[in-house]
Amino acid sequence: MYSTVHRLLRINTHRVRHLSASCLPEKVKIVEVGPRDGLQNEKTPVPTEVKVQLINKLSETGLPVIETTSFVSPKWVPQMADHVTVMRRINRVPGVIYPVLTPNLLGFQSAVEAGATEVSIFGAASETFSKKNINCTIDESVERFREVCEAAAERKIPVRAYVSCVLGCPYEGAVSPKAVAEVAVKLKELGAYEISLGDTIGVGTPGSMLAMLEEVKTRLPVSCLAVHCHDTYGQALANILIALQNGVSVVDASVSGLGGCPYAPGAAGNVATEDVVYMLNGLGIHTGVNLDKLLDAGQYISEFLGRKPASKVLQAKLGSKL
Amino acid sequence: MYSTVHRLLRINTHRVRHLSASCLPEKVKIVEVGPRDGLQNEKTPVPTEVKVQLINKLSETGLPVIETTSFVSPKWVPQMADHVTVMRRINRVPGVIYPVLTPNLLGFQSAVEAGATEVSIFGAASETFSKKNINCTIDESVERFREVCEAAAERKIPVRAYVSCVLGCPYEGAVSPKAVAEVAVKLKELGAYEISLGDTIGVGTPGSMLAMLEEVKTRLPVSCLAVHCHDTYGQALANILIALQNGVSVVDASVSGLGGCPYAPGAAGNVATEDVVYMLNGLGIHTGVNLDKLLDAGQYISEFLGRKPASKVLQAKLGSKL
Repeated sequence: MYSTVHRLLRINTHRVRHLSASCLPEKVKIVEVGPRDGLQNEKTPVPTEVKVQLINKLSETGLPVIETTSFVSPKWVPQMADHVTVMRRINRVPGVIYPVLTPNLLGFQSAVEAGATEVSIFGAASETFSKKNINCTIDESVERFREVCEAAAERKIPVRAYVSCVLGCPYEGAVSPKAVAEVAVKLKELGAYEISLGDTIGVGTPGSMLAMLEEVKTRLPVSCLAVHCHDTYGQALANILIALQNGVSVVDASVSGLGGCPYAPGAAGNVATEDVVYMLNGLGIHTGVNLDKLLDAGQYISEFLGRKPASKVLQAKLGSKL
Repeated sequence: MYSTVHRLLRINTHRVRHLSASCLPEKVKIVEVGPRDGLQNEKTPVPTEVKVQLINKLSETGLPVIETTSFVSPKWVPQMADHVTVMRRINRVPGVIYPVLTPNLLGFQSAVEAGATEVSIFGAASETFSKKNINCTIDESVERFREVCEAAAERKIPVRAYVSCVLGCPYEGAVSPKAVAEVAVKLKELGAYEISLGDTIGVGTPGSMLAMLEEVKTRLPVSCLAVHCHDTYGQALANILIALQNGVSVVDASVSGLGGCPYAPGAAGNVATEDVVYMLNGLGIHTGVNLDKLLDAGQYISEFLGRKPASKVLQAKLGSKL
């Protein structure tokens, strides 16, 4: 059945040009977060060589950005303890950006030594989540990130910023759009070029996504916003669609839906990159990503992990082999 | 984590009222198809008593329509051979409609004898699918349905019509929106009060859904249209969202995502009712369905089938129990 899909997609692409021209972005930048956000939440230990192979495969797909690893203490995130080796071993394809997560100045310095040319910082819109996740208040985290951003500015290293819990918090429940906008503005003022708005626990719907974006857009230009959706409640693609309709043109996704949900074991994790690309192809939106190569990368890591991939497109491709 | 969801939903509902008022329907009628479209594609045999229990549980959720069984020959669909017993044993809740599928006059007569008060007919927008699925051309199928519709009209029994393969066919690939509109109009002219447009193999995206709906809406009022999405490529909720934005207010869904995909074993099936209700709640759209009771029904049938439910909302609720 899968072979028919490509025929279908050509037709879809043709048909929706008028939609695309009116209210959807012509191009979307996909930020692949599987090797970092995905693998740091996987319980199965993944050898460095497998990570390197995965990143190398992703680098060949046309993805413009691949978040590669995290320079956090191995005490907190043992899954990313091999960050230096990963950074040294991967084949860096010209034009592809390989950001790494740096929670503080120490992490930033190690990342730069290991050859990072872009870094990410990870804040939260919920006080309780901030305290439990990074052990400080939101304001304290902003001060930590200020040190990172100043050091990055000196070296002309771009900084990407995450805001987590933008549509709900596992501890506080509801999170107000105003709280999200407040943190997003602070991180932008520190110098971050892009703010990725994360539905960390995947509870959002197109309704709450729209309300949150409308508030954040009163404070920041939509061109600097990304959405980062988890599929815990199955809403990720619908949430991304409403974000696209509201001018967002940067979408985070994780190959094969790597990651799971640390707050609900057994539940789904990051939205699968394959499924995002399939939808964008069908909407006639350019991503530059080769879906076949992406599916190969998803199959590689799913087979290593020994489990059914979370990407439905990959499930459909593998069909009876599952 | 699940307990926080209800708090979140109340807030979502409040916030999106302006969206709902502008371009989304205020109410959506959900047509539950799990006991028929779902279970007829399940390989595990389901005893009559379990079907009856499932339908009774669904009847208590507030769902307005529950497609109950199919009056087809047991030679073709052995899973539905117990249709008469199912119809007799279920508790019919006043106000709930229990349609049954009737492919021809013989099936219609048996259904009426068993107490059916509404029936469904099942056509296709693809010639090859029609031939392989119901062994006749589209035009021949319309003639068969004419007999059913005339007999139904005599007895004042409402008829609902499906058009399958509206966004793609497992044999032909692309299906043109004009072909869909053509069949939809014919079935409407036969007397069907509602036309359910089915993405039988789940290959559609919001792009192709929009193109198809725009064409069908040139021929039929949107108030008589339903969408019937499969989640084979993960696109179902995004496709439903675009349908809602374009005036559709009837959505077919299958509790716990029952059904799978007969054309891609291992792939996902019907969109899960729980996930549809979760999205609609978040959009502030009234369905009358109690999500907790619906989740109980989904858990009941998933546990019977001994597998992880396809509904992500149910996965999130069950969490570590999975």
